Amino acid sequence: MPCLAMDVRGVNVGGKGSTQYVVKGSQKEFPRELLEELKIICQDNISVDYDERYIHGKPQNSFHKAVNIPDVIVYPRSEEEVSKVVNLCNIHKVPIVPYGGATSIEGHTLSPHGGVCIDMSLMKTVKALHVDDMDVVVEPGIGWMELNEYLEPYGLFFPLDPGPGASIGGMCATRCSGSLAVRYGTMRDNVISLKVVLANGDIVKTASRARKSAAGYDLTRLMIGSEGTLGLITEVTLRLQKIPQHSVVAMCNFPSVKDAADVAIATMRSGVQVSRVELLDEVQVKAINIANGKNLPESPTLMFEFIGTEAYAREQTQIVRKIVSEHNGSDFVFAEEPEAKKELWKVRKEALWACFAMEPNLEAMISDVCVPLSHLGDLISRSKKELDASPLVCTVIAHAGDGNFHTVILFDPSQEEHRREAERLNQFMVHAALSLEGTCTGEHGVGTGKMKYLEEELGVEALRTMKKIKSVLDPNNIMNPGKLIPPHVCF
Amino acid sequence: MPCLAMDVRGVNVGGKGSTQYVVKGSQKEFPRELLEELKIICQDNISVDYDERYIHGKPQNSFHKAVNIPDVIVYPRSEEEVSKVVNLCNIHKVPIVPYGGATSIEGHTLSPHGGVCIDMSLMKTVKALHVDDMDVVVEPGIGWMELNEYLEPYGLFFPLDPGPGASIGGMCATRCSGSLAVRYGTMRDNVISLKVVLANGDIVKTASRARKSAAGYDLTRLMIGSEGTLGLITEVTLRLQKIPQHSVVAMCNFPSVKDAADVAIATMRSGVQVSRVELLDEVQVKAINIANGKNLPESPTLMFEFIGTEAYAREQTQIVRKIVSEHNGSDFVFAEEPEAKKELWKVRKEALWACFAMEPNLEAMISDVCVPLSHLGDLISRSKKELDASPLVCTVIAHAGDGNFHTVILFDPSQEEHRREAERLNQFMVHAALSLEGTCTGEHGVGTGKMKYLEEELGVEALRTMKKIKSVLDPNNIMNPGKLIPPHVCF
Repeated sequence: MPCLAMDVRGVNVGGKGSTQYVVKGSQKEFPRELLEELKIICQDNISVDYDERYIHGKPQNSFHKAVNIPDVIVYPRSEEEVSKVVNLCNIHKVPIVPYGGATSIEGHTLSPHGGVCIDMSLMKTVKALHVDDMDVVVEPGIGWMELNEYLEPYGLFFPLDPGPGASIGGMCATRCSGSLAVRYGTMRDNVISLKVVLANGDIVKTASRARKSAAGYDLTRLMIGSEGTLGLITEVTLRLQKIPQHSVVAMCNFPSVKDAADVAIATMRSGVQVSRVELLDEVQVKAINIANGKNLPESPTLMFEFIGTEAYAREQTQIVRKIVSEHNGSDFVFAEEPEAKKELWKVRKEALWACFAMEPNLEAMISDVCVPLSHLGDLISRSKKELDASPLVCTVIAHAGDGNFHTVILFDPSQEEHRREAERLNQFMVHAALSLEGTCTGEHGVGTGKMKYLEEELGVEALRTMKKIKSVLDPNNIMNPGKLIPPHVCF
Repeated sequence: MPCLAMDVRGVNVGGKGSTQYVVKGSQKEFPRELLEELKIICQDNISVDYDERYIHGKPQNSFHKAVNIPDVIVYPRSEEEVSKVVNLCNIHKVPIVPYGGATSIEGHTLSPHGGVCIDMSLMKTVKALHVDDMDVVVEPGIGWMELNEYLEPYGLFFPLDPGPGASIGGMCATRCSGSLAVRYGTMRDNVISLKVVLANGDIVKTASRARKSAAGYDLTRLMIGSEGTLGLITEVTLRLQKIPQHSVVAMCNFPSVKDAADVAIATMRSGVQVSRVELLDEVQVKAINIANGKNLPESPTLMFEFIGTEAYAREQTQIVRKIVSEHNGSDFVFAEEPEAKKELWKVRKEALWACFAMEPNLEAMISDVCVPLSHLGDLISRSKKELDASPLVCTVIAHAGDGNFHTVILFDPSQEEHRREAERLNQFMVHAALSLEGTCTGEHGVGTGKMKYLEEELGVEALRTMKKIKSVLDPNNIMNPGKLIPPHVCF
């Protein structure tokens, strides 16, 4: 692993594309020759401006501290440019950090070793839409919300809904999902094929455009969730879905989180194909009441979405209504009219925002664990005992149909004891999930934040296997180093 | 790569477990020391009997010729035994060939370099069933049909249906699917976690039992479809489905294959969630008529299955009935009663058997390609021109909802010109599929048969990447050598 700048400051005379770049105070200077070569490739789309590098180096959506910033930022316009940039960085053994929507929250876009940040925001073209095949070929910089705007006139949509601003490339890299995963699966299930630039600059096509294939190793899935540590995604072929003909949104309350979790289990076992099952605890509902001036019952709450034909969506609603009533549920309300549905979903959609509204001066540490569904009630009950006893305000939001559970822990990052307590709670939940056959991250990824839990979850043999794969595809360890594979793993 | 016996004959004095094993005529003898060590591990569950080795070395379900047979067969009873066997073979640099139900048809279980055949038939326990989580943990030797018998009392089933006799481990190894993949996905989508023995004997757990995870590289998917060339599967956690409350089976005819394919597209685009859409051409229907004494209209035929609640299955049936009538379809019949449904599905289920009944002295070469759905009509039309003009009898069966297309080419393997013509037709279809953005194998896998097409499909960069991964996980190339990665690929 190259030991690069830990305290790099670039002095940029002449703005973007200047040749007056000087690196000061580095343990090892950023190679001037590489900078010149990058400028030839990227022309005006390169920056060594301190503020720009600072913004790219500082996590905007997470509690992780940045210990360094990138030395250079490039904004490639094509796969060919990406390949040339990566190949040059490999020759010079300089790290690269792929940069998408920067909405990830486990430190994926940090630049602990400086290097070249490759910002994909100029590559956001829809390259081909195949309406009959229900697939689309896009560049990685496009956002999922932009893509869905593009697709709407065709009656199609892409069914993953992480935070606003997330880009398709980043969503592939972190194996993201969201509230619709219970119906449509995660990023793993919705990507048909990728094009990826490897550390040596090779451009690899991972699969054909066929829906099914048994042709060789599943390089598509190997890249999805590899967080830029194996390759940089330059093209994505996505599976699309038809916009449902009809949908119903429903909400109901429970005396305990366990009752709510039991309904999630019974719903899944009934064969009803819900498109969303979201759980909010009473603290989260309270936050929503405060933020939105609402008067919702402050008790554990489930929200559902049912889709399909009108008759089917209604039939499902009634089946679940019955399940709810059998598990101490109450206040079952549902909506079919667009405005009423929007109003109901607002409750879930603005949950995180409501937390900040309740505590405007605090930051959020968001935990993300996932367990087999039968353990969800147990996990939430155990966690809530700990959360409720903490001096910090903590809310619970779960994609309950998948057993995926988030806690929003509100804390003041400037107060060391706040940070320690938030980290203790996060760690408590991860260990609880791991003791219940679960994972330390259901959808947010590993980044730098979850590395320390991987060995407990998967065992050292799995990590050694990952490290071997990384070492053979990226022998100089230039691809997003310091992420995903714990540093202590060797083989 | 070790150069092992190309003409091995074992003389087995004393039956199973004998120490009198002698290898004759080998380029390199099977290490006597290894044999002794294997006997200590496997006790009575080892064989060097010629007939037993011959049966294991000869493909029972494919047209591929065996050029060699394994030197030894072991029947491990536990993961620990598998680990010890593989580790020993690695030390001695002797190839291993994993052996499941042996129903694969691309030569996956051939032993071109002799070595140790690891027959998994003694490892078929159901280790844990989690009804609330709708998952099951099994050993790899269990068959999918046995598993479904076990699951039926719980109202659950595993929704993949390859050939009878296929084992779960083998299904993972070849990334198989079947007629239900259009609804439930392939093996890729239905495995939660694996345990795998690597070449060095390491036992790797690829994932937790949680439904969703973003914790590191997707080793599960890397192993699925790797055909025993990266590791040997010793445990599988499978996602299960609820047995549908109700189902409807329907059948209809079309003047052309293109009309039938257009209906498959329109059905998928309608948002109707069919569980099966199968296409048979007029030659296949004719074979069924001859074999079963039926009188079905000998024209391109689509068969559907609709599942869900009674109301939903019926509603879907009527939506598709309308689509069919808009695309020149006729004779739309459907059945809801168990006996009537069984009778209808028999048509599809016994398709291959009907081919053999029509031509009892011939073997079948079954091609397996897959294209984006919009190209299926074109692919079948092009292929049928070639097939109909051939002196060989060829039928068409397609999993039409996925764009997955099989041709059964009946030929006499003892006639060289028959074999050449069958191979020419197979090759024609693969090239046609590749020219239509498709894959050389939708579900049967690569084995030895499809290696020659991978570079055209994926490019040399993808194959180099696969070879690198193989080389770092299996540096002595002992894991099912000679399969999946074309021999000419190097890096």
